[in-house]
Amino acid sequence: MRSAIPLVVPPRGFRFSALAAGIKTSRRPDLALIEAPPGTSAAALFTRNRVVAAPLQVGRKALQVSRGRVRAVLVNSGNANCATGLAGMRACQRVCHEVARLLQIPASQVFPSSTGIIGVPLPAERIASSLPQLVANRKATPQALREFAAAMMTTDTRLKIASEHIESGASQIRLVGVAKGAGMIHPQLATMLVYLLTDAVAGPAELRKLLKSACDETFNCISVDGDTSTNDTVLLLASGKSGVGLKAPKIRETFHAAMHRVCRSLAEQIVADGEGVKHVVQFAITQARSREEALRIGRAMAHSLLVKTALAGSDPNWGRILAAIGASGVPVDPDRISISIGDEWVYRRGARCNFNLENAHRALSQPVCKVWVRLGRGLASLLFTTTDLTEKYVRINASYSS
Amino acid sequence: MRSAIPLVVPPRGFRFSALAAGIKTSRRPDLALIEAPPGTSAAALFTRNRVVAAPLQVGRKALQVSRGRVRAVLVNSGNANCATGLAGMRACQRVCHEVARLLQIPASQVFPSSTGIIGVPLPAERIASSLPQLVANRKATPQALREFAAAMMTTDTRLKIASEHIESGASQIRLVGVAKGAGMIHPQLATMLVYLLTDAVAGPAELRKLLKSACDETFNCISVDGDTSTNDTVLLLASGKSGVGLKAPKIRETFHAAMHRVCRSLAEQIVADGEGVKHVVQFAITQARSREEALRIGRAMAHSLLVKTALAGSDPNWGRILAAIGASGVPVDPDRISISIGDEWVYRRGARCNFNLENAHRALSQPVCKVWVRLGRGLASLLFTTTDLTEKYVRINASYSS
Repeated sequence: MRSAIPLVVPPRGFRFSALAAGIKTSRRPDLALIEAPPGTSAAALFTRNRVVAAPLQVGRKALQVSRGRVRAVLVNSGNANCATGLAGMRACQRVCHEVARLLQIPASQVFPSSTGIIGVPLPAERIASSLPQLVANRKATPQALREFAAAMMTTDTRLKIASEHIESGASQIRLVGVAKGAGMIHPQLATMLVYLLTDAVAGPAELRKLLKSACDETFNCISVDGDTSTNDTVLLLASGKSGVGLKAPKIRETFHAAMHRVCRSLAEQIVADGEGVKHVVQFAITQARSREEALRIGRAMAHSLLVKTALAGSDPNWGRILAAIGASGVPVDPDRISISIGDEWVYRRGARCNFNLENAHRALSQPVCKVWVRLGRGLASLLFTTTDLTEKYVRINASYSS
Repeated sequence: MRSAIPLVVPPRGFRFSALAAGIKTSRRPDLALIEAPPGTSAAALFTRNRVVAAPLQVGRKALQVSRGRVRAVLVNSGNANCATGLAGMRACQRVCHEVARLLQIPASQVFPSSTGIIGVPLPAERIASSLPQLVANRKATPQALREFAAAMMTTDTRLKIASEHIESGASQIRLVGVAKGAGMIHPQLATMLVYLLTDAVAGPAELRKLLKSACDETFNCISVDGDTSTNDTVLLLASGKSGVGLKAPKIRETFHAAMHRVCRSLAEQIVADGEGVKHVVQFAITQARSREEALRIGRAMAHSLLVKTALAGSDPNWGRILAAIGASGVPVDPDRISISIGDEWVYRRGARCNFNLENAHRALSQPVCKVWVRLGRGLASLLFTTTDLTEKYVRINASYSS
């Protein structure tokens, strides 16, 4: 499985490490570190769930105190450190301080992440005792980056890495993203973690703007099961070690586009590795009045059980899609809506089409298929990526597990 | 199956009829009529889906024109007459006119309903040619009422009837409700139809108020799969034939309570007959700031795939419930939330409880189980009834069917 992903050269300045600290009962790697060089800028986005895990609260605070500077990222899998109360906050701070002590950096420049089971105390002492070895092993190699990505995995079946190079005269900016996905076999587990690393020269404010724009179009437009995690985090770090800044319009534009592609690739990797997924479905929503209403309609379709089960059966059941659009809360006019499955128009401005059932069925049987929804309301459009809902998903998530 | 439901005596003044008109390919009964006596008052509530089937548009208009007077209700199953364009509107008007002609009443006093497949032309001529026999067969008997309820069924496995009697001195008001549920085995089908009949004396305005209040607490607080149908209709008719009005506070109060019980009973029958359902789950949401936010949280839990699949496995997975509450959009404070499964507190004001796993598992294994969610925000409360999500549901709805 791993061999399918080529070795990715990390951006300059970052070092990586991973090991098995015994947080997971499986004894697989579950603790991982990124060390960033002095002067590294950072920007982060967090879950909008009102129930927020301890590491997100600590990390958000740290970014404020350090004014967007990060020197180390500590990630554990196997435990979300969520709904763990004051003890969970203390455990998170405890391990962050230990990393800071070992690397001789301020604790406010250590960014923590956790993913795994909700409501179980984080084994802070066990983690702390593994930290000296974790720190000692850090390396700047492609293999170390890959081991970092692997240690984040919980129910993911595949590593998720994407990378881009941006040339600037004789210099080159590297951009790498690693992610873990929304596999939820383990009880109470639902976390997307994404780390984006670059050696471009950029300040925290610039990174924040860039990250917000890339995420809006990618990670915010995917859904496996409509459940928002308590631990979702996307972190962007820029080491500046390429020596290339983003001030020149051409470089900035190229870098933005590369960032967008990396985020989209990771988003698609996350969806494709969703539990029990047979098909990835891309809803292209066009002629919406605004991006927001296109997103609302994308989510309504992606969260409809009837739409998702029809997709599992490759059933071109446009009536379910139309009903989901109608129930989205957007004041659509059904007589202006058109729906196309692959190349087949199935519903056009209020009327059913005499479409080729076999063609539509075949289009939906592809591993990745596309459904067009034209609203006839405006000029905004959006691509929303989701999955079907299979019996396997239910089997995985219904197994008695608490 | 039918034998479990006792014969229900209809309210005075109503007559019923049903037959197989050949709309369903199964040749089962699919056309049904209620005739109401002159002077019958009516109030109706319709789906909030923006995609609205033709009969709902015709029925809504008819109630306006007639100022809340209904003399006949014509229901067909096997075809939703939705997304059928102008031809669908004409087909609906055609059959309503035919009913009006046969009963010698104004067409504006015929209320049409349809349930079944979306996007297929309604066979108006076939229906029209069955109407003389349908009208000729109408009877005021319990058996005729039952046949009416049976002809509405599509994928329902059980008849859904509830009734109450309200004594007023020597007189008595009868109240009967019949419903069809949200079974969705047939492609593109998702309709709840409810007819509430009484012989109380009450005008349209009074009925509207009463119906709104009863529905808010019952039909609006249930969910099988979160998909809002294009055809949902609740109609309340009052024939006045008991001679008893609702002006006296005591009678009014008793009648309101009876209406509430009938609606709740039908709502629970609909949920229990949902596709693939193993457990009905009642979420008792307390200490909300308002009814609206309690409803929002109820819906968030009921629409979470992770919560629903955990319920299928009788898994007391409170982390998933907490995450769904946090993602509801209501600004909850996790440290004030408590969750109890049956009698076991599993999470209390921000902290996991050391609960008896076996007890909680056993509570969730009952056919109907209760989960308490205390928000610590205010004084509003709400009971939200939903179902688990089983592999059978997916199997039913994923079968290639268009």
